[in-house]
Amino acid sequence: MSFIHDDFLLQSASAQRLYHEYAAGLPIIDYHCHIPPQPIAEDHIFENLTQIWLYGDHYKWRAMRANGVDERFCTGDASDWEKFHAWAATVPKTLNNPLYHWTHMELKHPFGITDRLLNADTAASIWKEGNEKLNTPDLSVRNIIRYFNVEVICTTDDPLDTLEYHQQIKESGFEVKVVPAFRPDKAMMVEDLVLFNSWVDRLIEITNREVSDYAGYMEAILDRHQFFHDRGCRLSDHGIEQAYADEYTTADVEAIFQKARKGEVLSVKEQHIFKSDMLIQFGRMDHEKGWVQQYHLGALRNVNSRMYRTLGPDTGFDSIGDFDLARPLGKMLDRLDTDNKLAKTILYNLNPSDNALMATMIGNFQDGSAVGKMQFGSGWWFLDQKEGIEDQLMNLSNMGLLSVFVGMLTDSRSFLSYPRHEYFRRVLCNYLGTRMDQGILPTDYDLVGGMIADISYHNAKRYFEF
Amino acid sequence: MSFIHDDFLLQSASAQRLYHEYAAGLPIIDYHCHIPPQPIAEDHIFENLTQIWLYGDHYKWRAMRANGVDERFCTGDASDWEKFHAWAATVPKTLNNPLYHWTHMELKHPFGITDRLLNADTAASIWKEGNEKLNTPDLSVRNIIRYFNVEVICTTDDPLDTLEYHQQIKESGFEVKVVPAFRPDKAMMVEDLVLFNSWVDRLIEITNREVSDYAGYMEAILDRHQFFHDRGCRLSDHGIEQAYADEYTTADVEAIFQKARKGEVLSVKEQHIFKSDMLIQFGRMDHEKGWVQQYHLGALRNVNSRMYRTLGPDTGFDSIGDFDLARPLGKMLDRLDTDNKLAKTILYNLNPSDNALMATMIGNFQDGSAVGKMQFGSGWWFLDQKEGIEDQLMNLSNMGLLSVFVGMLTDSRSFLSYPRHEYFRRVLCNYLGTRMDQGILPTDYDLVGGMIADISYHNAKRYFEF
Amino acid sequence: MSFIHDDFLLQSASAQRLYHEYAAGLPIIDYHCHIPPQPIAEDHIFENLTQIWLYGDHYKWRAMRANGVDERFCTGDASDWEKFHAWAATVPKTLNNPLYHWTHMELKHPFGITDRLLNADTAASIWKEGNEKLNTPDLSVRNIIRYFNVEVICTTDDPLDTLEYHQQIKESGFEVKVVPAFRPDKAMMVEDLVLFNSWVDRLIEITNREVSDYAGYMEAILDRHQFFHDRGCRLSDHGIEQAYADEYTTADVEAIFQKARKGEVLSVKEQHIFKSDMLIQFGRMDHEKGWVQQYHLGALRNVNSRMYRTLGPDTGFDSIGDFDLARPLGKMLDRLDTDNKLAKTILYNLNPSDNALMATMIGNFQDGSAVGKMQFGSGWWFLDQKEGIEDQLMNLSNMGLLSVFVGMLTDSRSFLSYPRHEYFRRVLCNYLGTRMDQGILPTDYDLVGGMIADISYHNAKRYFEF
Repeated sequence: MSFIHDDFLLQSASAQRLYHEYAAGLPIIDYHCHIPPQPIAEDHIFENLTQIWLYGDHYKWRAMRANGVDERFCTGDASDWEKFHAWAATVPKTLNNPLYHWTHMELKHPFGITDRLLNADTAASIWKEGNEKLNTPDLSVRNIIRYFNVEVICTTDDPLDTLEYHQQIKESGFEVKVVPAFRPDKAMMVEDLVLFNSWVDRLIEITNREVSDYAGYMEAILDRHQFFHDRGCRLSDHGIEQAYADEYTTADVEAIFQKARKGEVLSVKEQHIFKSDMLIQFGRMDHEKGWVQQYHLGALRNVNSRMYRTLGPDTGFDSIGDFDLARPLGKMLDRLDTDNKLAKTILYNLNPSDNALMATMIGNFQDGSAVGKMQFGSGWWFLDQKEGIEDQLMNLSNMGLLSVFVGMLTDSRSFLSYPRHEYFRRVLCNYLGTRMDQGILPTDYDLVGGMIADISYHNAKRYFEF
Repeated sequence: MSFIHDDFLLQSASAQRLYHEYAAGLPIIDYHCHIPPQPIAEDHIFENLTQIWLYGDHYKWRAMRANGVDERFCTGDASDWEKFHAWAATVPKTLNNPLYHWTHMELKHPFGITDRLLNADTAASIWKEGNEKLNTPDLSVRNIIRYFNVEVICTTDDPLDTLEYHQQIKESGFEVKVVPAFRPDKAMMVEDLVLFNSWVDRLIEITNREVSDYAGYMEAILDRHQFFHDRGCRLSDHGIEQAYADEYTTADVEAIFQKARKGEVLSVKEQHIFKSDMLIQFGRMDHEKGWVQQYHLGALRNVNSRMYRTLGPDTGFDSIGDFDLARPLGKMLDRLDTDNKLAKTILYNLNPSDNALMATMIGNFQDGSAVGKMQFGSGWWFLDQKEGIEDQLMNLSNMGLLSVFVGMLTDSRSFLSYPRHEYFRRVLCNYLGTRMDQGILPTDYDLVGGMIADISYHNAKRYFEF
Repeated sequence: MSFIHDDFLLQSASAQRLYHEYAAGLPIIDYHCHIPPQPIAEDHIFENLTQIWLYGDHYKWRAMRANGVDERFCTGDASDWEKFHAWAATVPKTLNNPLYHWTHMELKHPFGITDRLLNADTAASIWKEGNEKLNTPDLSVRNIIRYFNVEVICTTDDPLDTLEYHQQIKESGFEVKVVPAFRPDKAMMVEDLVLFNSWVDRLIEITNREVSDYAGYMEAILDRHQFFHDRGCRLSDHGIEQAYADEYTTADVEAIFQKARKGEVLSVKEQHIFKSDMLIQFGRMDHEKGWVQQYHLGALRNVNSRMYRTLGPDTGFDSIGDFDLARPLGKMLDRLDTDNKLAKTILYNLNPSDNALMATMIGNFQDGSAVGKMQFGSGWWFLDQKEGIEDQLMNLSNMGLLSVFVGMLTDSRSFLSYPRHEYFRRVLCNYLGTRMDQGILPTDYDLVGGMIADISYHNAKRYFEF
């Protein structure tokens, strides 16, 4: 029997039944990911496994570096085959890491390779077989997306993005909905004024606004918010270390904005005040338009400055932080709520020690206005693995309503990551099937299976109004 | 087979044997709860399920709000039947939340309803059947308490409480001991000086003391402490975000007290100093009288200010915080210990990430003077569910002595919550039975079962000297 | 069947096969412990069980105190037999604590006592049988070490230590390598200037250096670093509450050093600056010599000041802290890395809530220069038990490469603690065997067993270049 068999991760008959009858066949709504829209617009055909699988995949690079593989084979000038071989030789060392599962799930789907495990010995044959299948129109980007039964894709985009590829995709009549999400991190990145000011300058150029003060800045951003909305965007996203909810006046924010525009370095306090207000402004815009807002909280980024200087961000040198979350997060959400401006919200945390905190935080702002208005997001980044998923499910179950959860997203930069939805559904069905076997849930397949179908697809369908 | 069957939660023969032979038959010592004494004094008969089950139950309200149910059906002016129906319709959405278990355990005991699960379809029939049984002397408050084999109940009371209902209960000859616990949170709530000063004014009135300085304040409080002691109180309780152990002089405390009495707003530092000293004063009083002191640490309360303004505290808008605990808690306990004034103590935390911290903190002050002098309290509030209980048991086991643990309490506001003791005992027996099956514990039923009986009843009996 | 049988902790056939075929027979590299070298040098024969088992064992003292045992029987003047009896009577109360396992594993090896469990009733017979076996050359210290198939022992030593016993051991031709580790905690303990200055004075004496400034101080310490290196030391170790990575200039450090030498009390900020720099200096020395550096982070020590005054440190009054770790730890490591001075590093945390943080922190500095250059250390102190070990394995697996982990160490002060390696290997094999049974790992014994053998022995052999 192959490693990734039909009942992979499904450890009892009830788990198997729940998965195959209630979850397996449902379409995918991938409401948060980082795939680029251009290859979809162009219906790109990848040349080889390295290009679709290793380029940009900092999960794999981290594993290779930990295994003593030289940087040349990760991000350097080694050939695609050399890189693939170095990865293949590392794969057996990833045993018990989700990469080991993802790798073999992705070889099964869409490549149909199930008769051998990837390692140094099988590298050449898998390279050959995989490339042959990949390098044809059958596995063009759009056909890969169709293969996985994807219904909606939300990319993640800077407010200054032209969204031209989204437009091309739409005009092309591609049956899968591909919409942008609004991620304005740079709009408040005042810890790096060079980056911030060049971003604002470009904003001015694009919007043709004056932007001599903070109010003007907000108007220009609102233009982009509207632009995104007009192109189908229904979600925003914020990647922040922690929530910001300092005390301040509007005059403070104005003064800080002016200072920033002059390039005068801001104190940490000033930075936090600026971010505190901008998060409120963004929150109001999202509420106004009926969007869902997402907060990705708690990553400690770019910890290795030597590698940051060489490779830039998102190259595998980030980790889990231990920031204070509860009080500022509660306060930030409360500021929006108190004015009835709190949009539907998804909170993601990166430190699993905060799972219980998060699962209870959302409860403070459930107000009966929408089913599952406040969401505790699925296990993110380092937590996107069996135990990470299970721990989120357990905490959400015990401290909130699992039944109204909008479920999985890939968060991925690769077109091969859709099996993560299958992975999540298997973990979900195994978790609940086991609990049914243990008498913790009633042995009522339609009751439990219905909840599984909701989490796998229907809740997201209802929650996001794409 | 009904959902809540005889072996509910007991997943092996050894777990079943341990529960039925060693735990099931023992009386209940509910040493911490929030039920009002008046209905016991009056032997109240409830009219319907909503009144006994939904009034004041913020756990259920939170679930309903998350399910998109309007506030009208939670705390609003909907009829009792409408509220019950709204709750019934939410119950299937609580699958995998402890509410799903508690609900059906409470329908089984004391109502004997085991043939159907509560949902929108069964709401009417369960409403009828439940109300018929409830609205008779058979299920008067005292008979409910007797039904559950309760031996002792400790309520939670403000020091200014007259304890008249406790007195009435005692004088009535009710065979269950109902004693107060001393919860002086308002005595140090100097962040809200209106509340604080009205509390102090009332204290002056009741005690007929002068209270012109801090020493006088302490004397007046001590009067109430003695009053409670005379009425059988043997426990105190403190609901605090974190422990306070600032540096200060007695002059500082006096100055802060005077300032507070004048209604002059205190700085956060002053508030912390005031609380730092009051906790020491309370600790000494408790030690002097041989009481047990309890600290409930780590709740972030009243996060939703809009709802707080409408509904007040304890209405379902609190969550788990991430306060710094170790250093101030260690210091506060050390200050008492260093003067040999550290009473028997139970520490409860709300963030399960602190379980290991807590399980080791108690070890710092175990001094051989009493068996299990320092206790790590059972899973509290959001943690009062299978995994929360198991995680507390696991941490206490690994880092302390599970065998001397005083076990479960309901912490509830409802007269229907006694099945939580059964729930705890089932979880405990399943946890230890599983470990016996795995060879982690010896297959010695009297050894393991004896420990279970101790935790379920005998340890509390010995520890609290009611 | 005895409690500690051949398949103890191995809950399936695959776990059993993995343990017996791949792990059981391997030698032990105990790369971090606190045993004194003198008894090895002298090949000491212990008189009785209390002397080898209870003297200095604060784990057992804590358990006894929690059980209400008077201090006299822990650290006081009770006779060895009285102490043993008090411990024996406490043992059944440690059910489900690792002490219960360790105790019976240690009675099995090396004493061969497997037919009864230790308790008050069996105390006398086990005392007699154990002492008879112990008090012979068969169980001299060296023979105990040989019995457990130990290949390398690293002790933990103050830089001022003469290492004379290490020298004697080496010269004696003892076939087990016994090498020192460099633990310079006192060299930066500037919160206690009496201790610090007496340490520096003694350093001056030993090295015959001037030490009029900080540079001189570093030179003198470097002398000792070289001295340790020449005697086979290849590891350093730091016991610190948190990482220190303040901002400062070299002039700041010099000024602080001068102030400290004059005995002028330092502010907390000054202490942190001093430690920030010293950790960098130590890190550079270790990198220069190709050592491995270890950081033990997060203990809150000496919490009970009354007992600290009576008994001193390391007597059972320490617990788990909740210090901020991520940011300063990342910064400290980054400062070393940015100059290419980051040695191989093992990070140990004491709060299991930081496991995920730690497992991801090491990834920031894996640079391909060595297999598993950065290590997340095995469950330490309170975490050295089945669940603690499993949680470290799980986090390291999911967020790093378990396969390159250097595995277990005893961290013990006792010559009877080598069964902890067996314990770890059983937990490891059970963890991975269970996952093989569940289809989470491929059913490939050589693949999984090979990883187990690496973690149990080969990785440490390759990583540490003794």
